[in-house]
Amino acid sequence: MTPILKSGTVYGVGLGPGAQDLMSVRADRLIRGARHVAYFRKAGKPGQARRIVEGMLRDDLTEFPMDYPVTTEIPLADPRYAASLAGFYENVAAHLRALAESGEDVVVLAEGDPFFYGSFMHLFTRLEPHVPVRVVPGITGMAAAWTATGAPITWGDDVLTVAPATLPEAELSARIADTDALVVMKIGQNLPKLKRAIEAAGRMGEAWLVEYAAMAEERVIKLAEVDTAPYFSIAMIHGQGRRP
Amino acid sequence: MTPILKSGTVYGVGLGPGAQDLMSVRADRLIRGARHVAYFRKAGKPGQARRIVEGMLRDDLTEFPMDYPVTTEIPLADPRYAASLAGFYENVAAHLRALAESGEDVVVLAEGDPFFYGSFMHLFTRLEPHVPVRVVPGITGMAAAWTATGAPITWGDDVLTVAPATLPEAELSARIADTDALVVMKIGQNLPKLKRAIEAAGRMGEAWLVEYAAMAEERVIKLAEVDTAPYFSIAMIHGQGRRP
Ligand SMILES: C[S@@+](CC[C@H](N)C(=O)[O-])C[C@H]1O[C@@H](n2cnc3c(N)ncnc32)[C@H](O)[C@@H]1O
Ligand SMILES: C[S@@+](CC[C@H](N)C(=O)[O-])C[C@H]1O[C@@H](n2cnc3c(N)ncnc32)[C@H](O)[C@@H]1O
Repeated sequence: MTPILKSGTVYGVGLGPGAQDLMSVRADRLIRGARHVAYFRKAGKPGQARRIVEGMLRDDLTEFPMDYPVTTEIPLADPRYAASLAGFYENVAAHLRALAESGEDVVVLAEGDPFFYGSFMHLFTRLEPHVPVRVVPGITGMAAAWTATGAPITWGDDVLTVAPATLPEAELSARIADTDALVVMKIGQNLPKLKRAIEAAGRMGEAWLVEYAAMAEERVIKLAEVDTAPYFSIAMIHGQGRRP
Repeated sequence: MTPILKSGTVYGVGLGPGAQDLMSVRADRLIRGARHVAYFRKAGKPGQARRIVEGMLRDDLTEFPMDYPVTTEIPLADPRYAASLAGFYENVAAHLRALAESGEDVVVLAEGDPFFYGSFMHLFTRLEPHVPVRVVPGITGMAAAWTATGAPITWGDDVLTVAPATLPEAELSARIADTDALVVMKIGQNLPKLKRAIEAAGRMGEAWLVEYAAMAEERVIKLAEVDTAPYFSIAMIHGQGRRP
């Protein structure tokens, strides 16, 4: 007689922006107790998510680094780009599913909040039909970024627009012109385009760049003054709404 | 000789959406250690922020509830409304400032993230020129709300618009029509207006309401099916962006 095995759970755990003590108490407990931890990284790099939990993990734990396929030579719009990523997500999801089906719980580390952009959701949609998946929300990178600027992002009736810098320049510019408060994610190589779009919207004077919010390298600087931006950076314009 | 007194610090501490273990480790430590805790509430009500920290506070602590002035008879647009609120914020800020100047640290409880809408920032701007103020970011109500729906809010190039339901109906409707993903805050009495605006934008079929995200009373329901909404509720439309 084969005993019926209870499935393990896959936890998508939001790590928050980077400082270990900005993790939620729930995330902290799950990570310290985990026997299986999985995380995305660029091949050959330690990975930001793994770096955040350094020193928190059990000695007897099994790590499952998920190395993104190298896609730098394939343009984003090329169907081979999506196909390569899709195959990668299928493979790692299959591994996590097998672990859960063998009765093990697995913690997947996700920077910021797991359901706000980010890669965890590509696993979520593939796992959720098959094994129990629980998501632990996290403090977003943008919340740490506006905290770092020392000024509130939205007041009263302000509208906040969050846009990735990967959008076409004309759309970026129109969105930037038409909002009270602004957050722009995924800057990196898109910085020159973003600067042109903000300039065209007439808002360069209000724009800030926050690099590595809540991490050791945190830096806040006027957007007009930067010529390069790391992947972990966020541009923002603060709302100026009603304030009694 | 009078010794020079070192000023205390005012901490604006994000509590997260409601569940105690969704507080950050930093917030948890500050709250458990606090000798002075201040929080907003409606007169006669226990207050959501105070409710969240129930059971975490020291026995010898001093509480400073900040009761909003009763403004229900004054319309929002009336200058007396802003004047009444401004006077209230001045008074409570003066008390917190005096406490800090006497050398005491004070923890101000803020729901969600302190710099994302919310009342803490009206204290922040009044205190920050005079005494040390530190802000601890928190998990927003909206992050708990999209987690509760069990679906990611933004993918790939999605644009997210966050709008308060207090906006005029025509503006709400235009913003709802013109975004990938949507979050609407401050619903309550504005529900009928919000429903008309979403209907006019042709997006009612995609819209969800999340009440009391991450609290005991959490509820997720199609927006089309509700006729009333509590103050602690968020409407949302999920982005459908690129997903390899
Ligand atoms: C794939 S998205 C993931 C967002 C994440 N899930 C969150 O909730 O913040 C990656 C982008 O998030 C932003 N980001 C996340 N954390 C950040 C931080 N601590 N400092 C600066 N930018 C950050 C950057 O714009 C980066 O390009
Ligand atoms: C004055 S704003 C404060 C927002 C808060 N600072 C945050 O970061 O979420 C109040 C609004 O936040 C939303 N809200 C905050 N927490 C919530 C929760 N746990 N569930 C549902 N709505 C919430 C509601 O729309 C409410 O009307």
